[in-house]
Amino acid sequence: MIAADMGHDHSGRLRRTAERASELGIDALIVAPGPDLVYLSGYEAPPLERLTALVVRPGSDPILIVPTLERPRAQDSGAGAVADIVDWPDGAYPYETVRSVLSSSVGTVGVSDRLWALHLLGIQRAVPDAAFGSAARVISPLRAVKDPYEVDLLQFVASAADRAFDRIVKEPFAGRAERDVAADLAAFLVDEGHEVPLFTIVAGGPNSASPHHEPGERVIAPGDAVVLDFGGRRMGYSSDITRTVFVGEPSDEMRRVYDAVRAGQRAAFERVAPAVPAEDVDRAAREVIADAGYGDRFIHRTGHGIGLEEHEDPYLVVGNAEPLREGNAFSIEPGIYLAGRFGVRIEDIVVVSGDGARSLNRATREAVVVA
Amino acid sequence: MIAADMGHDHSGRLRRTAERASELGIDALIVAPGPDLVYLSGYEAPPLERLTALVVRPGSDPILIVPTLERPRAQDSGAGAVADIVDWPDGAYPYETVRSVLSSSVGTVGVSDRLWALHLLGIQRAVPDAAFGSAARVISPLRAVKDPYEVDLLQFVASAADRAFDRIVKEPFAGRAERDVAADLAAFLVDEGHEVPLFTIVAGGPNSASPHHEPGERVIAPGDAVVLDFGGRRMGYSSDITRTVFVGEPSDEMRRVYDAVRAGQRAAFERVAPAVPAEDVDRAAREVIADAGYGDRFIHRTGHGIGLEEHEDPYLVVGNAEPLREGNAFSIEPGIYLAGRFGVRIEDIVVVSGDGARSLNRATREAVVVA
Repeated sequence: MIAADMGHDHSGRLRRTAERASELGIDALIVAPGPDLVYLSGYEAPPLERLTALVVRPGSDPILIVPTLERPRAQDSGAGAVADIVDWPDGAYPYETVRSVLSSSVGTVGVSDRLWALHLLGIQRAVPDAAFGSAARVISPLRAVKDPYEVDLLQFVASAADRAFDRIVKEPFAGRAERDVAADLAAFLVDEGHEVPLFTIVAGGPNSASPHHEPGERVIAPGDAVVLDFGGRRMGYSSDITRTVFVGEPSDEMRRVYDAVRAGQRAAFERVAPAVPAEDVDRAAREVIADAGYGDRFIHRTGHGIGLEEHEDPYLVVGNAEPLREGNAFSIEPGIYLAGRFGVRIEDIVVVSGDGARSLNRATREAVVVA
Repeated sequence: MIAADMGHDHSGRLRRTAERASELGIDALIVAPGPDLVYLSGYEAPPLERLTALVVRPGSDPILIVPTLERPRAQDSGAGAVADIVDWPDGAYPYETVRSVLSSSVGTVGVSDRLWALHLLGIQRAVPDAAFGSAARVISPLRAVKDPYEVDLLQFVASAADRAFDRIVKEPFAGRAERDVAADLAAFLVDEGHEVPLFTIVAGGPNSASPHHEPGERVIAPGDAVVLDFGGRRMGYSSDITRTVFVGEPSDEMRRVYDAVRAGQRAAFERVAPAVPAEDVDRAAREVIADAGYGDRFIHRTGHGIGLEEHEDPYLVVGNAEPLREGNAFSIEPGIYLAGRFGVRIEDIVVVSGDGARSLNRATREAVVVA
C-alpha cells in the first residue's frame, strides 16, 4: 500500500512554476482551489464560494490567501511549509487582499483554468490595469510530466479499475437497468481501492452510441452492445477505463466495428513515443478507423491527459502539435458510434516511456460476452 | 417518495431570467454547467473542460451550446424542450460559437459565478468589446426564492440528515479516529435517503475549534467536544446540519459555551421574517454571543442560503442589507471557537414563511452526551 503524503515535492514544483512564469514574462499566478493548488501545495480547499488563492510571483515567496475560518485547515494541510498564509474575515472584500499582495507594477497575471468567474471578475475589477491570461501555460506542462511517484499512484488506480471490470463482467447484464449496473460498478471501484467513484457510464443498446451517456432506467437486453466507461480517485489521482461488452454473441457488424476500434486503439498506442506530436497519435487511430469505413463515426478526439484531473494536458486531438514527453500520462480511447443503433469504445491509460508507451490498464481487450 | 422530474418549471424560470436581464440592461447571460444550468434547463453537464454554455438573451430563444459528443446526453436531459441545441466538434474553437450566437451589438454580458476562468478568458477574447459582469445579479434572486416543490426537496434531505444524526449518536465515539466516524456518517446519509454525501466534518477536541476541519486520524477521547457538520444531496438539493456532542459529561465551561451558541442560534431564528435585512439575523446571533463574553470567538457569518448549491444567496453576514423574502432557505449556524481547546456550532436549515421562519431540521438542540 502507498503511504498518504510522501513523495510530492511541493517546494520544487513551486520553484519550477515561478521560474517558468518568469521565463514567460508573467508577473504573478493566481492558483485556485482544485488540482493546481493540490499540485503546488498539497492543500485541498473546500470548493465553495469564499476565495482561496495561492499567489506565486517570481522572486517572492508564495502567499496562500484563505478565509479566516479555514486558516487552521490550511495550516493542518502542511501548506504553511511552502507558503505564507494570509487570511481574510467574513464580511471583508477578498479581492482587495489579492491586490495588496500583488506588486503595484503587476502587468501580466495568469489564473488557474478552474478559478470561478465570480473570482476572476472580482480580481479584474481590483487590478484593472493588469492583463489576464491562463496560468495553464505555466503549470500544465509541469503537471503533464508525471514523476515516478505520480506514476505509481496512477498505476494503483488503473489496476483497481481493471479489477472492477473483471468483477462487473461476471454479473448478469440482461434484464437489469443501466443505473443498477452502474451502482455495482461504483461499489466495485471503491471495494478495489478507490476512495470515491467519479463516473460510471453504462450505456446499453442505442445508448452506447452516446459517448457521454448518463446511465438511466433503460433495461439492458440480449443483443446489446454495452459501453462501460468508469473511473474513480484515490489520493488525488484518477483512473479511467472503457471496455465494450456484448450481451450474448455480437453480430457480424458489431464484430467488424469492434475490431476496427481495437485496431485503431493499438495503432495509436504503437505511435506513442517521446517527441511525437500529440496529434499524430490521434491521426494513427483515425486512419485505421477511416480505412475500415467508419471515419465519420469517430466523433471525438483520441484521448486526454490524466492525473489530478480526469481530463488535463496533453490532449490527443487534431491541432495539438505539442511533442509528447517521457512521463506524460493519457488515455487512448477511439470509438465508433452508429447513432440509434450501437457504439464501441476501448480505452486505456498509458504513460510515455523512454522509447514508447506503457499501458497501465491490463484488462482484456478481447470482445467479452456477458450474460 | 418524491418523483424525479416533476415540479421544475424550467421554461418559466428562463422567461423570468430573460425579463430580469432585460430590466437590468444585460444583453446576454452565459450560463455554465452547475447549479445555474440545472435550475434553468434541468441539464446536468459533465463538469469537464469542454465548453457547455446556455445563452439567454432577452427577446430571443435560449441556445444551449454543447460539445458534439454530448449532444445526445443533452437531448436526453430534456433541455431540448426549452432551448435550441447547438454543438461544436472536438478540435473546433468553441468561443467562436459563443460569439456567433451573440448579437454583434452585444454590450453587457453576465456570466455564471462558476464558469471556469478558462472559458471566461476565451469568451472575453472572442467578444472583446463586451463588458462582462456576474449573471448572479439576475439569476441568484430567482434561485433564492424556493417554490413549494423545492421546499419539499429541501425538507426531504433535511429529515434524512436528522435521521443520520440520530443514528450516529448511538455509535461509540471515544477511541475511534475522526475519519472512521465520518465514514459512518457518510454511510448513514446515503442510507437515510441521500444519493451522495457531500461533506462530513467530524472535529474532536482541539479540532472542534477549526470550523472547516478535515477529519483525520486523531482519536476521539473522553472529555472531547465533537462538532458534526454534514450533508448530502438528493435530486440536486443539499442538506446541511451541525450538532456538537460531548464524549462524557461536558465541563461547566463547555456548557456555558454551548448555551451561548444555542441562545444565539435561537435569537437568530426568531429574528427571521419577510423584509428583515439579512444582516439583522447575523446581528441577532452575534449580540447574544457577545453578551456571553465570546463575541471575538464567533469568527464567521451566521449562515448561507442553500438549494442547488451548498452555499448560495442569501448570505447572513454583516454588510448584506438585502431584505429576506418568503421562500428564502438558509442555514443559521453560529459558533464559538476557543483555539487549541474546543469549539461549538449548532446549525439548522430554515425557510422564511409568511410571518417568520420554519426550521426544516428537527434533531434535538439539547447537548447530547455520547459514549
